[in-house]
Amino acid sequence: MIELPYLLFLGDAPDPLAAKVAQGIKDWNPDAAVGQLRLPGCNADMKLPEMTIDQAVEAGVKTLVIGVANRGGIISDKWKVVLKEALEKGLDLASGLHNLLRDEPELVALAKANGRSLHDVRIPTVKYPIASGVKRTGKRCLAVGTDCSVGKMYTALAMGKEMEKRGIKSSFRATGQTGILITGGGVPLDAVIADFMAGSIEYLTPDNDADHWDLIEGQGSLFHASYSGVTLALIHGGQPDALVVCHEPTRPHMRGLPDYKVPSIGAVADLALTMAQMVNPDCKVIGISVNTSGMPEAEALAYLKELEAEYKMPAVDPFRTGVGALVDALVA
Amino acid sequence: MIELPYLLFLGDAPDPLAAKVAQGIKDWNPDAAVGQLRLPGCNADMKLPEMTIDQAVEAGVKTLVIGVANRGGIISDKWKVVLKEALEKGLDLASGLHNLLRDEPELVALAKANGRSLHDVRIPTVKYPIASGVKRTGKRCLAVGTDCSVGKMYTALAMGKEMEKRGIKSSFRATGQTGILITGGGVPLDAVIADFMAGSIEYLTPDNDADHWDLIEGQGSLFHASYSGVTLALIHGGQPDALVVCHEPTRPHMRGLPDYKVPSIGAVADLALTMAQMVNPDCKVIGISVNTSGMPEAEALAYLKELEAEYKMPAVDPFRTGVGALVDALVA
Repeated sequence: MIELPYLLFLGDAPDPLAAKVAQGIKDWNPDAAVGQLRLPGCNADMKLPEMTIDQAVEAGVKTLVIGVANRGGIISDKWKVVLKEALEKGLDLASGLHNLLRDEPELVALAKANGRSLHDVRIPTVKYPIASGVKRTGKRCLAVGTDCSVGKMYTALAMGKEMEKRGIKSSFRATGQTGILITGGGVPLDAVIADFMAGSIEYLTPDNDADHWDLIEGQGSLFHASYSGVTLALIHGGQPDALVVCHEPTRPHMRGLPDYKVPSIGAVADLALTMAQMVNPDCKVIGISVNTSGMPEAEALAYLKELEAEYKMPAVDPFRTGVGALVDALVA
Repeated sequence: MIELPYLLFLGDAPDPLAAKVAQGIKDWNPDAAVGQLRLPGCNADMKLPEMTIDQAVEAGVKTLVIGVANRGGIISDKWKVVLKEALEKGLDLASGLHNLLRDEPELVALAKANGRSLHDVRIPTVKYPIASGVKRTGKRCLAVGTDCSVGKMYTALAMGKEMEKRGIKSSFRATGQTGILITGGGVPLDAVIADFMAGSIEYLTPDNDADHWDLIEGQGSLFHASYSGVTLALIHGGQPDALVVCHEPTRPHMRGLPDYKVPSIGAVADLALTMAQMVNPDCKVIGISVNTSGMPEAEALAYLKELEAEYKMPAVDPFRTGVGALVDALVA
């Protein structure tokens, strides 16, 4: 686990999109971040107090999180000045960048000298078990998708917020680097060794109270030729009691696969349910979550209504309508 | 690729089963092994000429293959004497053991000093791509199973032998350590990083002649809670034109999963075909291969006949009946 609270490092982000990891933390775990540190030329702003490293230490910060994508795949010298000061003054570092903190000898040496940790959240640090398939206590909900990047993380996080509001016990279980940085822990599933994928999800979602829900972050799609194996390991390791199907209706083809059409919501629901019932015969598909950001409001709402009529279950856009109807269905 | 031919090291194998990797090489790629080297107390015998390291070098051997399982998970001092001599005299080493040659400092130093290679075939050495899903030329046949360890490798190897006999172009494509040692190359799929599983199979089975068949070694089962993701990556990366369903009819439950019943051949055929047709709409299930070693001969043959009547396709036991009927169906 990464120690909270965080100082969000926004670096010299050229635009707000470059700082989307910081934005995710700010939006979904606002108590986690007490300040931000920006370099000259930074065009992103989380509206958090601006802090130097000294001020962050003073404010009780434990970890500096790199909340911005780097340009050109390198950790620049300008960034390193800040990262080194953070280590020297007693902060850990956490990063979801492809190039790793642990591959920077200066940072490794300083972390060691100061007894600090370098968290590269793209890389597993746990020796996960082989999945046992044994039924666990507690409830689990998994978001599956018609494609990659259709709002599975967003849906699960939104459901977690709604359940917190209603006083229902739940935990968001991160399986990707942004989710891990938001919550401070999780499994970077795409980087796990094949034989241990399902086991890593069993590890992530252990026995729990009978009325507790794990909201498991989905990955990929059973229909995605590149990543389907990861998705199936999530379903079999997660033993979901409930599935939510996530969809983006304006996409011309599967992400990264120009020759592949996006499957229907119904096809994904049926196949994911078949797979899930192998490990949990009581599993149900409880609703649909659509990213309708590519549609005008009226069209989007009409589309959701059509889906509800066709599939006889709630269909929401977490951003436009909220996920209340999904939580209603979950606890029903 | 591992350089052929091999000297098979049988060590101090307590029984023939401990030397099953050597037996696999002897049975399926007999030209690959020109001799065997046994230590005192060895109870396995491949009926190959006994050779010292010097004699093996003289006979043109390039690689000493550890064809025996080790006891207690260590590479013993007795073994090391032989392995060191092999490196000093110019042989490479190849091993499918869990504990790695590369973790033995003495072997690493000697390999370096003598310009030799240490092949730990459980560990990928290639940086595999993300799968593209693009259709490839040539034909591919994949063995899928109702469970793990039901004869998928054996079936594919037997089909390769039969096709060689008939003058049909084919290549056995290994995805596990025994298969890799038999053929000298392949992908150790269970050790590949999740995101690259399907890509590793695309890499293993590239474009080929229109009348060439890749016979892809299957792994796991779509119904196996621990390894299903690996199986799905094989199907989506392999783009099979033909599927053979492998089965072992006497198993009380899924291997390693006491709470899971073995699925029916029909359920596996239907689900694997659904998955395969996502990447290759022309894929067909062409036959059934059963390991009937747990049944008396008459019962086994009657069972195969029943399966043929039920599923309207050939059902064979590669050991009892041969796989001619599967190859007939493949080329039909």
